[in-house]
Amino acid sequence: MANPEIMDKVVSLCKRRGFIFQSSEIYGGLNSCWDYGPLGVELKRNVKEAWWRSVVYERDNVYGQDASILMHPEVWRASGHVEGFSDPLVDCKKCKRRFREDHLADKSKCPECGGELTESRQFNLMFKTFMGPIEDTASVVYMRPETAQGIFVNFLNVVNTMRAKLPFGIAQIGKAFRNEITPGNFTFRTREFEQMEIEFFVKPGTDDEWLEFWKNERFNWYLRYGMTKERLRLRQHDKDELAHYAKDCYDVEYEFPFGWSELEGIANRTDFDLTQHQTFSKKNLTYFEEESKSRFIPYVIEPSAGADRSTLAFLVDSYCEEEERVVLRLHPKLAPIKAAIFPLMRKDGHPEKAQEIERMLRPHFNVEYDETASIGKRYRRQDEIGTPYCVTVDNETMENDTVTVRERDSMEQVRIPMSGLLPMLLERLNAEKKPA
Amino acid sequence: MANPEIMDKVVSLCKRRGFIFQSSEIYGGLNSCWDYGPLGVELKRNVKEAWWRSVVYERDNVYGQDASILMHPEVWRASGHVEGFSDPLVDCKKCKRRFREDHLADKSKCPECGGELTESRQFNLMFKTFMGPIEDTASVVYMRPETAQGIFVNFLNVVNTMRAKLPFGIAQIGKAFRNEITPGNFTFRTREFEQMEIEFFVKPGTDDEWLEFWKNERFNWYLRYGMTKERLRLRQHDKDELAHYAKDCYDVEYEFPFGWSELEGIANRTDFDLTQHQTFSKKNLTYFEEESKSRFIPYVIEPSAGADRSTLAFLVDSYCEEEERVVLRLHPKLAPIKAAIFPLMRKDGHPEKAQEIERMLRPHFNVEYDETASIGKRYRRQDEIGTPYCVTVDNETMENDTVTVRERDSMEQVRIPMSGLLPMLLERLNAEKKPA
Repeated sequence: MANPEIMDKVVSLCKRRGFIFQSSEIYGGLNSCWDYGPLGVELKRNVKEAWWRSVVYERDNVYGQDASILMHPEVWRASGHVEGFSDPLVDCKKCKRRFREDHLADKSKCPECGGELTESRQFNLMFKTFMGPIEDTASVVYMRPETAQGIFVNFLNVVNTMRAKLPFGIAQIGKAFRNEITPGNFTFRTREFEQMEIEFFVKPGTDDEWLEFWKNERFNWYLRYGMTKERLRLRQHDKDELAHYAKDCYDVEYEFPFGWSELEGIANRTDFDLTQHQTFSKKNLTYFEEESKSRFIPYVIEPSAGADRSTLAFLVDSYCEEEERVVLRLHPKLAPIKAAIFPLMRKDGHPEKAQEIERMLRPHFNVEYDETASIGKRYRRQDEIGTPYCVTVDNETMENDTVTVRERDSMEQVRIPMSGLLPMLLERLNAEKKPA
Repeated sequence: MANPEIMDKVVSLCKRRGFIFQSSEIYGGLNSCWDYGPLGVELKRNVKEAWWRSVVYERDNVYGQDASILMHPEVWRASGHVEGFSDPLVDCKKCKRRFREDHLADKSKCPECGGELTESRQFNLMFKTFMGPIEDTASVVYMRPETAQGIFVNFLNVVNTMRAKLPFGIAQIGKAFRNEITPGNFTFRTREFEQMEIEFFVKPGTDDEWLEFWKNERFNWYLRYGMTKERLRLRQHDKDELAHYAKDCYDVEYEFPFGWSELEGIANRTDFDLTQHQTFSKKNLTYFEEESKSRFIPYVIEPSAGADRSTLAFLVDSYCEEEERVVLRLHPKLAPIKAAIFPLMRKDGHPEKAQEIERMLRPHFNVEYDETASIGKRYRRQDEIGTPYCVTVDNETMENDTVTVRERDSMEQVRIPMSGLLPMLLERLNAEKKPA
C-alpha cells in the first residue's frame, strides 16, 4: 500500500531531528545530494557495520577491500560503461526542454508544450573529470558509477596475496556517482550514493546454487535487523529484463510509501567481467584449480546493495505513529543512540548523578545526556530518534542508588540498582532478534 | 633520520601482503591512486574507528556528520577555492614540458632542456565535473577539495536540531580530491584521499585556549595508538606560513623515511569561514548565547587529519626488522587480524579442533585460520601483517583441551585451557597502552 504521506513525515522527521539534511541547504540545496546529520551518520554507520560484519567478519571466505573512486579510464571501456551506460534523451525543438525518451508516453511530441521532439541521442551517465593540468581527451577520468569494477581489477591481487581458493568473495563499501536525469524519492535515487557490494567468485557449474545461497542470505540479513517481513520480497528478473551479461538475477524489494522498490540486486554475472578485463588488459585472469589441475575464469555472483537505500528502508520501516507519540522502532544495533540519561530535576544532585552514569556508559556505546524540558518531552524526543533505553535519576536514586530504565517499544519501566545497569544494557543491546 | 630504503620495504610488504595495491594495476596503474587490499582496508577502518571513537563517542560535545562529496558550486566561491586554490604553472616553450613555478630553482629557464619558460599562470586544484546532461558553465560542480566546508554549511542545521551549545564540534570522515601536479611518496600525497576533520566552534576570546587543548589532545591520540614519541612533533607555523584566514596553526608531524611530514594540522580559522558563508548565502549564521543574550559568529578550531597519512604512519612506525623476521608492531586495536588459529598438523583432529576455536572467536573479533606451510612460516606471515596473537592446536590439545598462545612482540608462548582463551584475548585486545 503506497502511502506518500508517510514519506513526507519521515523526510520531515529526518530534517527536524538531525538525520538527513539537503546538501548545501543554505545555498538553496544541490539537487539530489544529501548530507547525513549527527543521528543519520550513526544510523548509516551502523547499517554499514552490520553489513560488513555479516559478510566479512562472520565468514571465512570473504575478503574486504577499498578501491579508489578514480580509476584508469580503460576499466570503463572494458566494463562496457563508456559505450553502453547511457539513457536516451530527446529535446523539444520549441521549448528546449529535455526528456528521457523511455519515460515519455508519446514519443513524438513534447509533454510540456506539444512541440516537435528531436531524434533521441544517448547520454552517458558517468561523471567525467580531468586528471592533470590539461583538459584534453587523454586526461579524462570518470567518477566510478559502481564499486564492482574496483573488485574485478583486484581479483588477481587478492588471489595472490591472500592465497584465496574458490569459492571466495571480495566485499567493498564505497561511494559511486551517476548523472541521473531523474533522481528522486529523497535518498532513494541520488546522483551520489554509497554501495555495499560483494563479488563472489565460484567454479562454473556451481553458480546456480551460489545464487540461491546468496539470495537467501541477503534477504535474511534485512530480517535479522528487524525489517518487516511482509514489506520485503524477492523478485526474479524476467528474461527480457536481465542485463546482457546476466544469466539470472533477483532483486530484494521493499515496499516504500512510494511503492515496491529495489534495495539490492543479486545477479549471476557469469564470467563476463573477468573475461572483458582479461581481453582489455591482456593479463591472464584465469584461476588455477589445484584439484583438477585446470585453469578457468570463475563465474561471479554479485549481491549489490545500496547503503543509502537500506538506511532509508530501515528508517521508513521503523517509523510508527501511536496515539501520543511517534516512535522509530529501530533494531538496537542500528539505533544512533543506545541510551539516554536524564536527571528528573535540575537540582538535588540529580544532574551530577546522571552525569556519573553517562561517564560510566559512554566508553561502551553511544549515549546522550539530556536535562532540558519535562521528562515526558524528553522521552518523546528519544522515541522519535529510536533510542532503545532511557535511564532516569530521581529522588529515590539519591537514597538507594537505583535508577529507572524505560524500554522504547513497550514503554515499560523497571527500577534496578545502578551497579546492574551496564550489564543489563549490554546484554539487551547485544541480543539480536533472529529471523522468524 | 630519513631512510628511503625502509620506505621501499614497507611499500613492498604492502603489495605482497595485501595492504595496498596500485589502483587499476592490471591497466598499468592510475598515477597517485591506491586501493586498500584485504588487510589494508581493516587497518584503515581501525584507524578511522579509533579517531571517531576518541572525538565523537568519548566526548559529549562533538557531533558527527557525513556530507556529500558534490556540493553547490557557490560553496567553493564562498570558501575562496574557486579564486584562490591554485598552483602557479609554467610551460617550456621549447620542449613543452610543464612545471610548478614555485618548485623551480631557476624560474627563467627549463630545468630539462634549458628552453625559455612562459609566464606562470594559476592552475586550480579542484577537479570539476558537470551535473545534468549539458556541459556548460551553469552545471559545473566540483569534487570537494576538503571536507571542512561540508561542516560549515551545516552549522545552523546542527545548532538547530541538536540544540548544540558553544563550545561544540562537528566531526566528519570522508574523501576529498585535489588535482595535485606532483603527488608522491606512496599514499602520502595523492589526488584522492580521505580526511578526518573536526570543526570546533568556540566563543571568540576562548580560541587560544581551545587551540592549546586540541593540539595536545590530537598529539596524544597518536601516542595512544602506539606511535613512537620520538618520531612525532608539534610544529607551530611561522607567521608568513599561515593561511590568510588563520590566526595560528600547529602541524603534527611524523618523521617518515622521506623526512618530517604533516599528518594533521590544528588551525585557528577564526570566524573566517562562517562569515564568508553568511555573506555569500545571505543567511544569518550567528550564534545566540543565552547567558549574555548576545549574537556573534563563533571562532573555529580545526584539527584536520589525513586518514591515509595516519594509516601510512602507523604502518611505517610499526615496521620492524629483526634478525629472523619482519614484524609489524601495530597496536592491537589497529591490527587487521587479532588472532590467527593454527592446527600444528593437518591430521589427528588438529584442523577440526582449530576450526572449532575459529568459530568460537569469530563473533568477537577478526580472526584467520591457517593450515598451510610449516608452523614457523605461519608465525612469520602473521608477524609480517601485525597479528598480535597466534593460537596453536597440537597433540596436547587433543588430550587436555589446552592451546598455546604466542604473543607477537615478545614471541613468548603460554599454554592455557581452551575455556580461558576468549576471556584472555578479549582482555588483552581491549587493554590500551596509555600515553607515557
